[in-house]
Amino acid sequence: MTDTVSRFGVVEPEELPDDLRVRIGEIAEKSGFVPNIFRALGHRPDELRAFLDYHDALMNRAEGLSKAERELVVVATSGANHCTYCVVAHGAILRIRAKDGELADRVSSNPWQAELDDRQRAIVDLALTLAQDSAKFGEQQLAAARAAGLTDDEIWDVGAITALFAMSNRLAHLTALRPNAEFYTMGR
Amino acid sequence: MTDTVSRFGVVEPEELPDDLRVRIGEIAEKSGFVPNIFRALGHRPDELRAFLDYHDALMNRAEGLSKAERELVVVATSGANHCTYCVVAHGAILRIRAKDGELADRVSSNPWQAELDDRQRAIVDLALTLAQDSAKFGEQQLAAARAAGLTDDEIWDVGAITALFAMSNRLAHLTALRPNAEFYTMGR
Amino acid sequence: MTDTVSRFGVVEPEELPDDLRVRIGEIAEKSGFVPNIFRALGHRPDELRAFLDYHDALMNRAEGLSKAERELVVVATSGANHCTYCVVAHGAILRIRAKDGELADRVSSNPWQAELDDRQRAIVDLALTLAQDSAKFGEQQLAAARAAGLTDDEIWDVGAITALFAMSNRLAHLTALRPNAEFYTMGR
Amino acid sequence: MTDTVSRFGVVEPEELPDDLRVRIGEIAEKSGFVPNIFRALGHRPDELRAFLDYHDALMNRAEGLSKAERELVVVATSGANHCTYCVVAHGAILRIRAKDGELADRVSSNPWQAELDDRQRAIVDLALTLAQDSAKFGEQQLAAARAAGLTDDEIWDVGAITALFAMSNRLAHLTALRPNAEFYTMGR
Amino acid sequence: MTDTVSRFGVVEPEELPDDLRVRIGEIAEKSGFVPNIFRALGHRPDELRAFLDYHDALMNRAEGLSKAERELVVVATSGANHCTYCVVAHGAILRIRAKDGELADRVSSNPWQAELDDRQRAIVDLALTLAQDSAKFGEQQLAAARAAGLTDDEIWDVGAITALFAMSNRLAHLTALRPNAEFYTMGR
Amino acid sequence: MTDTVSRFGVVEPEELPDDLRVRIGEIAEKSGFVPNIFRALGHRPDELRAFLDYHDALMNRAEGLSKAERELVVVATSGANHCTYCVVAHGAILRIRAKDGELADRVSSNPWQAELDDRQRAIVDLALTLAQDSAKFGEQQLAAARAAGLTDDEIWDVGAITALFAMSNRLAHLTALRPNAEFYTMGR
Repeated sequence: MTDTVSRFGVVEPEELPDDLRVRIGEIAEKSGFVPNIFRALGHRPDELRAFLDYHDALMNRAEGLSKAERELVVVATSGANHCTYCVVAHGAILRIRAKDGELADRVSSNPWQAELDDRQRAIVDLALTLAQDSAKFGEQQLAAARAAGLTDDEIWDVGAITALFAMSNRLAHLTALRPNAEFYTMGR
Repeated sequence: MTDTVSRFGVVEPEELPDDLRVRIGEIAEKSGFVPNIFRALGHRPDELRAFLDYHDALMNRAEGLSKAERELVVVATSGANHCTYCVVAHGAILRIRAKDGELADRVSSNPWQAELDDRQRAIVDLALTLAQDSAKFGEQQLAAARAAGLTDDEIWDVGAITALFAMSNRLAHLTALRPNAEFYTMGR
Repeated sequence: MTDTVSRFGVVEPEELPDDLRVRIGEIAEKSGFVPNIFRALGHRPDELRAFLDYHDALMNRAEGLSKAERELVVVATSGANHCTYCVVAHGAILRIRAKDGELADRVSSNPWQAELDDRQRAIVDLALTLAQDSAKFGEQQLAAARAAGLTDDEIWDVGAITALFAMSNRLAHLTALRPNAEFYTMGR
Repeated sequence: MTDTVSRFGVVEPEELPDDLRVRIGEIAEKSGFVPNIFRALGHRPDELRAFLDYHDALMNRAEGLSKAERELVVVATSGANHCTYCVVAHGAILRIRAKDGELADRVSSNPWQAELDDRQRAIVDLALTLAQDSAKFGEQQLAAARAAGLTDDEIWDVGAITALFAMSNRLAHLTALRPNAEFYTMGR
Repeated sequence: MTDTVSRFGVVEPEELPDDLRVRIGEIAEKSGFVPNIFRALGHRPDELRAFLDYHDALMNRAEGLSKAERELVVVATSGANHCTYCVVAHGAILRIRAKDGELADRVSSNPWQAELDDRQRAIVDLALTLAQDSAKFGEQQLAAARAAGLTDDEIWDVGAITALFAMSNRLAHLTALRPNAEFYTMGR
Repeated sequence: MTDTVSRFGVVEPEELPDDLRVRIGEIAEKSGFVPNIFRALGHRPDELRAFLDYHDALMNRAEGLSKAERELVVVATSGANHCTYCVVAHGAILRIRAKDGELADRVSSNPWQAELDDRQRAIVDLALTLAQDSAKFGEQQLAAARAAGLTDDEIWDVGAITALFAMSNRLAHLTALRPNAEFYTMGR
């Protein structure tokens, strides 16, 4: 048992290229700490930059899903994928975004049956099929989502966030990424 | 979306037969609240009594595994079984027993790869095979547990607790059992 | 290849505490032999006592499912769980309870497609989902059971018996429990 | 619930082309009844003839595996495939060939952990991987079989019988084939 | 890395019994080469003969499914079974039979969601359930096939071809059968 | 059956923001056509830009894995994920990069058993575990990769490419992305 953040070591923000140093610095200022994912990806600055860009394009988008709904997709699929870092870190963000201290634990422990309203359930069901059974994703899932009132723009949001965290979860599994201690209690 | 504790309704302690009323009363006094599992099982007093007896025989046993190790088995297998009630309730107990605010979330979100010491890892691996792939449980698992220093008495503890919570998890899934609000923050 | 009843040894009825000795004695008298599960659990009398209590509360209950239906749940889920002891022992009991020499073998070999009447099929389908895919058990399964005429009391019976044998199957897998020779031919 | 032998109807031996009528007649004389698989395949005589030829080439072969070992492969893989007809019919034949009243039920209910001698275990393990996880079948399985003393000719026997019953099991599932009543008690 | 056609060696057509030598010779003349499956099965002439008979009875049958539809069943189930030989060899034949250079690659890479017309989709769905989840194959699948207009004779064709290639795929996995180079580009 | 490239429509390069128009233009000039993935992602330019950046950071990286090895990771994991677009498009690129007309079809149809040299096999095995069973990815996989001579920098490459295509495969499943006709025959 070691006490490392990542199997492949970390790079601190001040060692990063200027644009990333500034960018991670702003996140750290807002959060009060540097989320470990950025320290773990830091030794490949081009990958970290693309990761941040993709993340921001989807998670900070003004139209489509609400911010809480975006985090709901992340927590549900990360729970299904058993990704500790994303469950703990995005669980914290979901608690804050949804102003609900229990939702994240309920969704991450059992995304298939967590009690949700109809729109949330449709979002989570769509995400789970694409996350776990993507070869069978098809018109049936789209029809169910549309029947619950999701627009095609919202469906794309759900699908693309699910896809992004299929990647992100696997990066966390690759690195055995440890969640920052702060995430465990944020928003409770 | 309803706000019920159990799909099948609950029975409050004061409605229970005397022996159960006293027994649940003692638990409530110690915990500060009545864990919902007892309210949900209450309308079948004979089943609730046998459940409590089985639980106490295994979870309060003086020999064999430590109390923290017993909860580790519960949290690991309940995480693998996606049982929200047991993850949240026994996660709280594990935090207290192990005096560790992070262990429960790490083990429940990914029991297969959570960083543990060798004895803990052997306990969890044994439990996971029996919980999830019990038809293939055999000499290979026993040999690995013994190689990690577990005695046959300890192996029985791990196996029997895993079996008990295979039942308990399914009772929680049957009733869509809601964790008490108190459990989410206990021991953090 | 050894010829043992249980990996962890057995305790004969006469070595048990008085209450258990009497209780197992009555079963032995009725059956003509001591079912091996009791000899295997005997070295932990408190667990054996709770096991018997839970078993009797569910399998001997006067209301709800018929006795044959209770055994149908056991054989179907034990077949799906590949539990040799429970398939062979409860297969024998099902043959007797249902007065049908073929039903048990058909249900244990393929519980999903064994030809059953509508009520039996609803019972078995409910049990199989909870036994094998419990994280996804929800309103859809309950609605199907109710549509087939099952009351909530009967649904609890199906669910609780399934849960009890999720435990029992795993105890048999833990101990590599050997069925008594008598069970193979009883009721044929 | 109907009481049919096959979803697609049956053809009685006397309705078959001469060569098949004679051939099935000999089987019926030897067994005392016409196994239902032949009645179910009868309306496609060319397929029935090829089925019989393939079956005889593998199950009556003089060299290689013993007859009991051939039936062991059939019962183990048919159990894993949940094929009621093959479990019941070939379970009967295995009881007779192995002169063992319990082996078939133990192997069909849990082929992965049924207690077997080392050679039988190697045969069954090889068969199960090819039956259930054939895309991952490779040098590792062959090495384990050879280490247990199987020759390449015997390995081919195990593999080819497994393959034949991958077909046969699916024909039984396609037709919902009902085992003849005689099979349930033969050899007990 | 070796460069063999089969793990168990091959037999050339001229070494085969006369009837098989002639029969394989005719195939070779028509194809321009001897498909490796026949060379791999050649050292067991009785099995090869039964294999050819079964294959011809189903793949050359005049009534029922069209020849392209028969190959569609083969390519879909072999893709789901990850059988390289059958995907490459029958992919070539499907390209020719369906006069479509893309269909085989689309169906073998993702048989569940490849864009097909309604009749083709019904054929493939029926085949996939029987190939991969045969214990759960039942009236639901038959009803869906009939709703799409398939006759019972056509359903038998789909089922029997699926069953035959459940065998054939496993023989290819057993032998690590290498596709002939010619198949990769035929019909593109 | 429609004949669309993506369920969500496409954006042609000339409709894209200048930087993307130039960038896609260069790809089109080099390939002779615009790969459909870029047309499908085009209506979300920020996501397309991040996708291209991430792709280039990993697939055009000078150090670490060779270009053929990078495509091997893509084809193996896309085959396991049943992603038609990535199998067909990156299969074409792998044929070109590896100068081998058969490798892509063999790897995509059965990545677990395709015959590869030891280094290739270690790369593919690492990738498959992370792609399909990421919750169980751990020290065992890393040790096997290191034993085959992979450096940690190469292991990161394998893991990060696997993660990127876990995303990319899901985007293709989300959009039902059709491969360009050109890819089917390139490099054969």
